[in-house]
Amino acid sequence: MSKWVYTFGDGKADGRAEMKNLLGGKGANLAEMSHLGLPVPPGFTITTDVCTYYYDHGRTYPDTLTGDVRAAVADVGAKVGAIFGDKDNPLLVSVRSGARASMPGMMDTVLNLGLNDETVLGLARQAGDERFAYDSYRRFIQMYSDVVLDVGHHHFEEILEIHKEEKGYTLDTQLTPADLKALIAEYKKTVEAELGRPFPADVNEQLWGAIGAVFGSWRNARAETYRRLNDIPESWGTAVNVQAMVFGNMGETSATGVAFTRNPSTGTAEIYGEYLINAQGEDVVAGIRTPQYLSKAARVAAGDTKPSMEESLPEVYVQLVEVFHKLERHYRDMQDIEFTVQRSKLWMLQTRSGKRTAKAALKIAVELCNEGLIDRETAILRVEPQMLDQLLHPTLDPKAARDVLTRGLPASPGAASGIISFTADDTEKLAGEGRKVILVRAETSPEDIHGMHAAQGILTSRGGMTSHAAVVARGMGRPCVSGAGALKIDAANQTLTVLGKVLKRGDVLTIDGSTGEVMLGEVPTVQPELSGDFSTLMGWADAVRRLKVRTNAETPLDAETARRFGAEGIGLCRTEHMFFDADRILAVREMILASDKKGRETALAKLLPVQRGDFVKLFEIMAGLPVTIRLLDPPLHEFLPHTEAELAEVAAAAGVPVSVIKTRAHDLAEANPMLGHRGCRLGITYPEIYEMQARAIFEAAIEVGAKAGATVTPEIMIPLVATKAELDILKGKIAGIAKAVAAEKGKDIPYLIGTMIELPRAALRGGEIAEAAEFFSFGTNDLTQTTFGISRDDAAHFLDDYIRAGIFQKDPFVSIDEDGVGELVRLASERGRAVRPNLKLGICGEHGGDPASIAFCEKTGLDYVSCSPYRVPIARLAAAQAALRR
Amino acid sequence: MSKWVYTFGDGKADGRAEMKNLLGGKGANLAEMSHLGLPVPPGFTITTDVCTYYYDHGRTYPDTLTGDVRAAVADVGAKVGAIFGDKDNPLLVSVRSGARASMPGMMDTVLNLGLNDETVLGLARQAGDERFAYDSYRRFIQMYSDVVLDVGHHHFEEILEIHKEEKGYTLDTQLTPADLKALIAEYKKTVEAELGRPFPADVNEQLWGAIGAVFGSWRNARAETYRRLNDIPESWGTAVNVQAMVFGNMGETSATGVAFTRNPSTGTAEIYGEYLINAQGEDVVAGIRTPQYLSKAARVAAGDTKPSMEESLPEVYVQLVEVFHKLERHYRDMQDIEFTVQRSKLWMLQTRSGKRTAKAALKIAVELCNEGLIDRETAILRVEPQMLDQLLHPTLDPKAARDVLTRGLPASPGAASGIISFTADDTEKLAGEGRKVILVRAETSPEDIHGMHAAQGILTSRGGMTSHAAVVARGMGRPCVSGAGALKIDAANQTLTVLGKVLKRGDVLTIDGSTGEVMLGEVPTVQPELSGDFSTLMGWADAVRRLKVRTNAETPLDAETARRFGAEGIGLCRTEHMFFDADRILAVREMILASDKKGRETALAKLLPVQRGDFVKLFEIMAGLPVTIRLLDPPLHEFLPHTEAELAEVAAAAGVPVSVIKTRAHDLAEANPMLGHRGCRLGITYPEIYEMQARAIFEAAIEVGAKAGATVTPEIMIPLVATKAELDILKGKIAGIAKAVAAEKGKDIPYLIGTMIELPRAALRGGEIAEAAEFFSFGTNDLTQTTFGISRDDAAHFLDDYIRAGIFQKDPFVSIDEDGVGELVRLASERGRAVRPNLKLGICGEHGGDPASIAFCEKTGLDYVSCSPYRVPIARLAAAQAALRR
Repeated sequence: MSKWVYTFGDGKADGRAEMKNLLGGKGANLAEMSHLGLPVPPGFTITTDVCTYYYDHGRTYPDTLTGDVRAAVADVGAKVGAIFGDKDNPLLVSVRSGARASMPGMMDTVLNLGLNDETVLGLARQAGDERFAYDSYRRFIQMYSDVVLDVGHHHFEEILEIHKEEKGYTLDTQLTPADLKALIAEYKKTVEAELGRPFPADVNEQLWGAIGAVFGSWRNARAETYRRLNDIPESWGTAVNVQAMVFGNMGETSATGVAFTRNPSTGTAEIYGEYLINAQGEDVVAGIRTPQYLSKAARVAAGDTKPSMEESLPEVYVQLVEVFHKLERHYRDMQDIEFTVQRSKLWMLQTRSGKRTAKAALKIAVELCNEGLIDRETAILRVEPQMLDQLLHPTLDPKAARDVLTRGLPASPGAASGIISFTADDTEKLAGEGRKVILVRAETSPEDIHGMHAAQGILTSRGGMTSHAAVVARGMGRPCVSGAGALKIDAANQTLTVLGKVLKRGDVLTIDGSTGEVMLGEVPTVQPELSGDFSTLMGWADAVRRLKVRTNAETPLDAETARRFGAEGIGLCRTEHMFFDADRILAVREMILASDKKGRETALAKLLPVQRGDFVKLFEIMAGLPVTIRLLDPPLHEFLPHTEAELAEVAAAAGVPVSVIKTRAHDLAEANPMLGHRGCRLGITYPEIYEMQARAIFEAAIEVGAKAGATVTPEIMIPLVATKAELDILKGKIAGIAKAVAAEKGKDIPYLIGTMIELPRAALRGGEIAEAAEFFSFGTNDLTQTTFGISRDDAAHFLDDYIRAGIFQKDPFVSIDEDGVGELVRLASERGRAVRPNLKLGICGEHGGDPASIAFCEKTGLDYVSCSPYRVPIARLAAAQAALRR
Repeated sequence: MSKWVYTFGDGKADGRAEMKNLLGGKGANLAEMSHLGLPVPPGFTITTDVCTYYYDHGRTYPDTLTGDVRAAVADVGAKVGAIFGDKDNPLLVSVRSGARASMPGMMDTVLNLGLNDETVLGLARQAGDERFAYDSYRRFIQMYSDVVLDVGHHHFEEILEIHKEEKGYTLDTQLTPADLKALIAEYKKTVEAELGRPFPADVNEQLWGAIGAVFGSWRNARAETYRRLNDIPESWGTAVNVQAMVFGNMGETSATGVAFTRNPSTGTAEIYGEYLINAQGEDVVAGIRTPQYLSKAARVAAGDTKPSMEESLPEVYVQLVEVFHKLERHYRDMQDIEFTVQRSKLWMLQTRSGKRTAKAALKIAVELCNEGLIDRETAILRVEPQMLDQLLHPTLDPKAARDVLTRGLPASPGAASGIISFTADDTEKLAGEGRKVILVRAETSPEDIHGMHAAQGILTSRGGMTSHAAVVARGMGRPCVSGAGALKIDAANQTLTVLGKVLKRGDVLTIDGSTGEVMLGEVPTVQPELSGDFSTLMGWADAVRRLKVRTNAETPLDAETARRFGAEGIGLCRTEHMFFDADRILAVREMILASDKKGRETALAKLLPVQRGDFVKLFEIMAGLPVTIRLLDPPLHEFLPHTEAELAEVAAAAGVPVSVIKTRAHDLAEANPMLGHRGCRLGITYPEIYEMQARAIFEAAIEVGAKAGATVTPEIMIPLVATKAELDILKGKIAGIAKAVAAEKGKDIPYLIGTMIELPRAALRGGEIAEAAEFFSFGTNDLTQTTFGISRDDAAHFLDDYIRAGIFQKDPFVSIDEDGVGELVRLASERGRAVRPNLKLGICGEHGGDPASIAFCEKTGLDYVSCSPYRVPIARLAAAQAALRR
């Protein structure tokens, strides 16, 4: 028979800290604290298994549960010397939810449960304080009604306000027992009016009502949203904790407080926290009274005059500090603690690992290690890689006020303020005049790149976390909020409407790419600074990781940023991104719109020197580190002119009528460009394009090699290969160029040729393709698109529904789908290495910067990951963690 | 050491008929005829291995070849009692190519090789006929120059014409030996002028020139085109046959002829062929003289007066008929024969299996079987499944004249004539007036369906063999020529320009969907009729095949056609095709453009009765056979209105302003609709659509079941599944509808739920998905698109280049790519069956009607294939052949 209920208190407990899955975090830690001999009010935990049972059986409980709970309540009563529902000596309890992971806001706590018109009299007598008893009763009715009966707060607050007004009171503390009794009567009347039945007087009915509300809350909308945002599976369920009440509001020797064993904002080892004399836990959080500092040092530092706990309750403070040390030594981590002092006696209500900023996480990990509490490996595992993002981008000043207009997706972290501009050209122009600009577009396209570069941040009304705007912005380290659907952008009239408010070009916006918030006006930001702790921890991480970390970069700026962040080479240089600069787009268009090979060659001759120049810079910056260059990949029509003026310009440059250019542009349009005439298909049909690129690469390699006195070995990557034959043909052509350039320059050119594995067929035929390829780079963006048959540009239409319905646990464009896409990566790796044991394997999709995906790469035995510059530190840490976890 | 040269003749031979790969078809059969003791002029075959060697070694020969050929030539000379190059008794030879498969027109034959100014004298003496000798010499120079030296025919024809004019001759036979000598001198002068060197007098130089020309011709443009069109790999190579000359032009007892052992057009067992007295082989084909019939019966039947061979050379005729019988009994198939009679002696020059029409193929197979020469299995294997197409569609009258304007792809077989129309609506209107119409579009879309139905045939300037036009036309059995790139269509001005010729609406065109020809004016067609032989052979095929054959159909017409052709159920009913009819498209658009669920439900309520009606008809026609219905699949915007009038109509029906409709239409546009919001993704986001469809299916099943007194068990298919979760959710919703309908009607509804496997992920997760699916239908069109990352709508931009470059041996949308797409089909089948052993497996992509793909399905153990109605007989036969070949 299952054990559904676990008791704790009095230095004993059925559970342990390790039993979080069964008891939830709160329940497990209450049990653990009991074992440690800390003063924990006795209570019991109803397990998460009951929650699972509850949902699997049409919201009913296991048969034995009623009896188990009755026994556990009696046990709690025995431990504290009180009886649940007894009118002379009533036991009061709190009821709280407690899932495996902390889920703030899932369900509010119910306190003071067990009070009714009779037991309140007993409480008054036991406490020797009638006002306390009736105030507790009033609070209980309000809290229970709100949380369990769904009769909202505002009903009771209104009654209270009216009463206080009538009496001329300004503070709650002015309420007399008689006032409170009158209020209670009114509260109960309101509940009955709202519900059509009276407020439950039966304490067992109260208890089961609260338990049911906790389990029920597991599937309410708030909880579901929270779980989705935090990757918490629904199957985990919540536990319910029922615990004897202790009172921080029993006069001037009572208090309640929250504390961290170290500063969660900076990581400094100091007592950090707040308390309130004569208050219940909720009062600290509610912000009605201003809480006071725990330590004198903190009070003095803040220039506060109200006494610290160290000063007002010195003995209890000493006891509390001892508990802090004990907990930190026991848990070997910074703790987040709730406590209550009832008439000078300290009670511990909760402990858990405390949430912290990235900066604090680094400091705490490094210092706990230096203190000998944890080893380096544990320190590495203690820092969430994603958090490092906070350290790399400017962030909004947390103290500044914010006028939030709407919220989109947190597409690229960091915050930015600037004036609104609706086009890339306009943005560039304004930026040229020294203005800070936020580029606002329905969605961006490769033609907007120059504007995105010039902008402080990018805001779009369409597109997801992996939309063009998001990907490019992350690559550039520009803050970006994408898919802010509430924005109605009218680019023609240069207006932006949000919730009826109309903004125009030049109005100031602030975006926070870490939260997705869009704010009116300028919100000040604070610049990041990389601490010594950062370098220390990253050094430890580098020492344990096996995966190399490269970057996806094509501009010198990106390449330099990435090197500063520790990139060990370029894993993906997207040559097409180099084609949009003003000094070359015309020649690119001429090349594309040429009607024959000769026309293309004329245009390509103009592009050769600029491409060579690009590669020279990259090779110089990377100074001997590997550089993988992908030949032209996207459908040609992405480069096409759209406006009449642009069309005319291209026609003039090519010396043909505009109508010819228009016809050709129309011919190039595709139904599904993602699956169209792109990648190596361009190389097959227009070999002169790849030949020009290969020549630029080889000439640059020789130039830089000569200057540096070292050999540059470029890695040339052929995109979108589906068959070995494609690779064979293109490899032959590139070899021809290498031979020609070598002959011209009188110098051998070592180089590698490899391929993107980004189509299911290429993955399946990995063995065959490895005969021709010296490396594979998994292009998991496209591989995810083709494996799922989902265009990421269009996924916004249904992705939310898919995540809500639980079809996707996570957006597969963010974290690699190990079951499907992952199997293809595994198959290609195995088959490729079977043919060519030293085949170099890497990943260069967006997944290369995602910790879960990096763990997959480690497991699969890849050699490196490549990600955008700002994700390089994240990847370094994630790679170390993945290596440690194997 | 390799044997490069194989001799034959004199009742002996080094080779056999089975050695076609090495000796080519001609060489192997010459050897075989020698073994059979038939009169074959002695000669030898240089093997295809030499061809391979030649190309692998920079167009050089194996060292020993010169010696081998010299010895073989001497051997031939010994056999016929002549010496190659001898001025008294010269051996003359023919040199011919001979690949594994017949490749007409690859290289012309060189006859009379071995003649020069000296040997011609010997020939004249030996033949006792100076005119014959010099005429042979003249012909040899012309032929050798044209074929080997690349000095074209026309040079010599011009000289000849001038000479005849000067002499006042009208016939070649009027030329005297002196004339011929003069001509020869002029011919040689011309060759020397063109080449800068004299015509080769050395007979060995002549011989090696001819051998080199044969091997060189293997990679000429004509040969490459032919190979591509006929799926002949380049690696096969050609052999060279050198054979002693025999002369059909040595006077009135000499003759030459070609024959078939049965009628290749009808299959009737009769002597069929032509001959010419006193002529060389080329004369029969050249059409300068009208050939005469072989048999008296044929001559009489044709009302011809010139004597038949039976009459003019009765003894040789008897001998020839004996040879025919011997060859047919030996080869057990109808033979295509070339022979020469030299001074009353019969010589066999070639035998091979004769090409035949579909009708003849059926009759010959059935009759050879009835005659006991072959068994039923062999008879089934003798008919090329693709050929059956000829029998099912009207074809152009082969005797009619054709004014061919251009040529596109043979996208859907059959021929059609009609007036040009540029829009679907106009086509429907004209057809309503009783006109025959050819719908001419740049490309078609689902909105053109009604016009395609109304048209006699469809002609497009864009799109490949698997474009929308092609697929739909094949499904409907409408002739279609697609991708005729030379056509410039100006739909706005209703004109069509081709090679400078401007056609307008109402002008008459004829298209031949079996050849891709587009012709001006009306070309008469002949109607097909299905013979008893067809039924007999199909009956034999049905008895041996394991695969079931279903059809892809949604209209009653298609379903009826398919049943007539032997379909055993519907494998794919594309419900979206039902949405385009005039009586429902408005409601469909209203549904799509509704801004909320309520709006959609209102529109869906209008669609329910029409959908139910559709299914009632299909269930009735299929009378208990399985019917698989695919729920809505394509992206919604395919149904959207485009014109202002249509937009207004939808807005009026939905009761909203046009601007709302326009915005919604814009919102629905997608970057890559193929990978967008479609398939089961629609079912997840708009469950009410699938619920309506499920209800229509269940209500129809009950209605038809009640009428027929039998249970209808519909098979419901969910498209575009990538995860088991999608299927679980939709299965649950459909089960809910089934329960509701069952409750309303008081009747149980048995049904199956399965899924299309058309995404790589679905194939990989086949095991998991089979837990929820009762059948898999492989949608290999989409699976090919996603596995290769190729949009078939856009593939035209590069597919030709890919086939030309040998990257694709065959268009993977026509014949399944066994290595890549095929592995996914195999994996899904294995993984699915491992979980659910009785999982029903089928294929419903275009590949379901392709014989090579059907062979793959047989090998992979699928249960059925489903194809368009007109391909059902092809599939039945291909399935039988696949079963036999395992």
